[in-house]
Amino acid sequence: MALKKEQRIGRHATLLLLTDDHRELSQQTEQIGWKSCLGKVGSMESQKVVAAIEVAAKQQGVISQELYRETHALYHAIMEALHGITRGQMQLGSVMRTVGLRFAVVRGNPYEDEAEGEWIAVAIYGTIGAPVRGLEHETLGLGINHI
Amino acid sequence: MALKKEQRIGRHATLLLLTDDHRELSQQTEQIGWKSCLGKVGSMESQKVVAAIEVAAKQQGVISQELYRETHALYHAIMEALHGITRGQMQLGSVMRTVGLRFAVVRGNPYEDEAEGEWIAVAIYGTIGAPVRGLEHETLGLGINHI
Amino acid sequence: MALKKEQRIGRHATLLLLTDDHRELSQQTEQIGWKSCLGKVGSMESQKVVAAIEVAAKQQGVISQELYRETHALYHAIMEALHGITRGQMQLGSVMRTVGLRFAVVRGNPYEDEAEGEWIAVAIYGTIGAPVRGLEHETLGLGINHI
Amino acid sequence: MALKKEQRIGRHATLLLLTDDHRELSQQTEQIGWKSCLGKVGSMESQKVVAAIEVAAKQQGVISQELYRETHALYHAIMEALHGITRGQMQLGSVMRTVGLRFAVVRGNPYEDEAEGEWIAVAIYGTIGAPVRGLEHETLGLGINHI
Amino acid sequence: MALKKEQRIGRHATLLLLTDDHRELSQQTEQIGWKSCLGKVGSMESQKVVAAIEVAAKQQGVISQELYRETHALYHAIMEALHGITRGQMQLGSVMRTVGLRFAVVRGNPYEDEAEGEWIAVAIYGTIGAPVRGLEHETLGLGINHI
Amino acid sequence: MALKKEQRIGRHATLLLLTDDHRELSQQTEQIGWKSCLGKVGSMESQKVVAAIEVAAKQQGVISQELYRETHALYHAIMEALHGITRGQMQLGSVMRTVGLRFAVVRGNPYEDEAEGEWIAVAIYGTIGAPVRGLEHETLGLGINHI
Ligand SMILES: [Mg+2]
Ligand SMILES: [Mg+2]
Ligand SMILES: [Mg+2]
Ligand SMILES: [Mg+2]
Ligand SMILES: [Mg+2]
Ligand SMILES: [Mg+2]
Repeated sequence: MALKKEQRIGRHATLLLLTDDHRELSQQTEQIGWKSCLGKVGSMESQKVVAAIEVAAKQQGVISQELYRETHALYHAIMEALHGITRGQMQLGSVMRTVGLRFAVVRGNPYEDEAEGEWIAVAIYGTIGAPVRGLEHETLGLGINHI
Repeated sequence: MALKKEQRIGRHATLLLLTDDHRELSQQTEQIGWKSCLGKVGSMESQKVVAAIEVAAKQQGVISQELYRETHALYHAIMEALHGITRGQMQLGSVMRTVGLRFAVVRGNPYEDEAEGEWIAVAIYGTIGAPVRGLEHETLGLGINHI
Repeated sequence: MALKKEQRIGRHATLLLLTDDHRELSQQTEQIGWKSCLGKVGSMESQKVVAAIEVAAKQQGVISQELYRETHALYHAIMEALHGITRGQMQLGSVMRTVGLRFAVVRGNPYEDEAEGEWIAVAIYGTIGAPVRGLEHETLGLGINHI
Repeated sequence: MALKKEQRIGRHATLLLLTDDHRELSQQTEQIGWKSCLGKVGSMESQKVVAAIEVAAKQQGVISQELYRETHALYHAIMEALHGITRGQMQLGSVMRTVGLRFAVVRGNPYEDEAEGEWIAVAIYGTIGAPVRGLEHETLGLGINHI
Repeated sequence: MALKKEQRIGRHATLLLLTDDHRELSQQTEQIGWKSCLGKVGSMESQKVVAAIEVAAKQQGVISQELYRETHALYHAIMEALHGITRGQMQLGSVMRTVGLRFAVVRGNPYEDEAEGEWIAVAIYGTIGAPVRGLEHETLGLGINHI
Repeated sequence: MALKKEQRIGRHATLLLLTDDHRELSQQTEQIGWKSCLGKVGSMESQKVVAAIEVAAKQQGVISQELYRETHALYHAIMEALHGITRGQMQLGSVMRTVGLRFAVVRGNPYEDEAEGEWIAVAIYGTIGAPVRGLEHETLGLGINHI
């Protein structure tokens, strides 16, 4: 199989969010020369979720601030992750719900064949629910794109 | 917060899929009296994914075989997880793609207040791509429902 | 208001489906010169639902068999009604569910201003659920279009 | 069939909206021990429709104000009803349209088997169209969930 | 085939947008008695795109300002064109993107059979992307409806 | 603006489909070193449309037969173009409709900055409608991706 078991960037990004101690995972990332960042965002405005991830990935050097093609790759990976988060309509406040989310972006080469180059994974995990503390349940999304 | 950190069924179901050794997680599940099952399915037909999860959850006693309300709760949790897997159209073969998936279903009480009762989490993880081995990337979905 | 209270074709089509004795409603329809038809269809194949409504509307003279513009108007009204029936993905068997439906098509002039001309309403009501008798709940959809 | 003909909560909720005199229906509801409420909302903001139904159902005692699981059940029933109302994008003002709606929420036991417990139906009916009086047509939606 | 090759209103509307010199096309339109208009709009608010097209079509006499049925036909043609522009969610600013668009509306009779009457085509072409100049790519949409 | 006016690959791909004589356009493509292909497909099965475009692009050398990342880039561009073609549900036969389509794939560098590298455009144009000759109208879609 072309997808290398130890280099699954989506699984890696998700575990970064779900494990309490992610030092081991972060070390592993550095050793194989991947780039990654972590962040959090809470909002009723979906654009703030998109912006928070884009800003973090650019400021922490996961994608280039200069190249549109990298922004484009990240943007579509975020959109795909938001499908998992929103499950039907990519809307938050306009359907009367809010989110409290953490996210991880991982950039690396998941395939055995080096020619497959770099890919990007966006994992998002947190809670979604009514704009009242506690009226919420878990939500998770993952987007993958070539970059 | 009403959602108990140690009893997040969605996180639990996802970790069951992503960690190599899930014995510890499974033990933990049994100790707090949760029910869970694991399974796998590969297909170009989306209904086979739905059916595989429903059959596993019923045969392994996670939901009742008798009550429609439990089937209904599970069904909508599966649909929500499939939003994360398919990211836009809940279609596989009809848009020329196939999946190789593992899934976990966890039933438990994630909230501090006992009156919130039981909830169900469906986590699905694997690969999606062209019907050619290797032309695929990771995909992940999570659905949560009250049961 | 331009929409005449007594000539709401959508409400009329829905009541034709929901009331046990629809003779009074049918008489009323004839008196104001509207055209209507009733039918039923059960299937796991969404295209059979579309076809059943199109065939009934053509055979019972609600729309012309000759004009594409009338078929087009009816088709989009059916699609809109199916949004209410399927609530997210316009799929039946491919997401492991089946329907047992009755439908009504009403063609008339719902607006006070005669220049607004004829419109068409497609109402669909029945059950949707797992392909096992009894594992199902109600579902309803309404589509409206100018014709 | 497990769904009791006389206890179809979705049909009941819809008829509450569509019949001019709903006293008979309301009496019938009380006799079998169901809970229900009626309300109306007009807006270009979709969240106001969601909020109006949630507030009415809580204030009139159809669902508990304390339990998230009941809010969750109602929320997803509202979302399903809004699929019928919006037919494609769950958006109002952002696609330049407005609604004038009435809604009914009914909570009861529609199945012969008592173990199936309580379910909730949200029916919404009214007009949708351009933000100009009269440039509008009928719209209808129904959502059903276990509670 | 019923669709006349020289009278394809969708192709015509699209060419009006894509060719640098559209005088020849505009003349051709007038000779066969079609109505058409051109316009442009840039925004992060999707309703402004809808409004710009509706206003242009009414002010330039492509559709009647008096008849709702013509507004309704145009509205759904715009919605269909926006599916091509937005490719998944009919949202702009709320998913952190903006558009710079030109549009053409053409009203004519594309079918050999005169009884098929008038139809309307809405073509939209331009750029979509991040709210930063240059971080954008092309986008195109076409909607067709009977009027 | 970063998008070069003369190198808009989406506009170019669309004009290849819409102009009767595309020799001039094809010459222009060769001169600037772009790759492109043209093809046609008619079907009620959506996967056949996807397959036809993928096969043509690989056989005519527009994308590599070896690299998954190129197949992935093309696949998502096709999906985006199909949003324009299907306008709501990416389904053909399952909602009782069929298509007769021509398509163009263009690969080139549309941005002034050479570092933005290669992008791919998929344009699709033709008719969509009932599975009866003549009961159809035009449809158009465009997808753009980095490659
Ligand atoms: Mg992909
Ligand atoms: Mg939920
Ligand atoms: Mg309409
Ligand atoms: Mg249901
Ligand atoms: Mg159409
Ligand atoms: Mg894009």
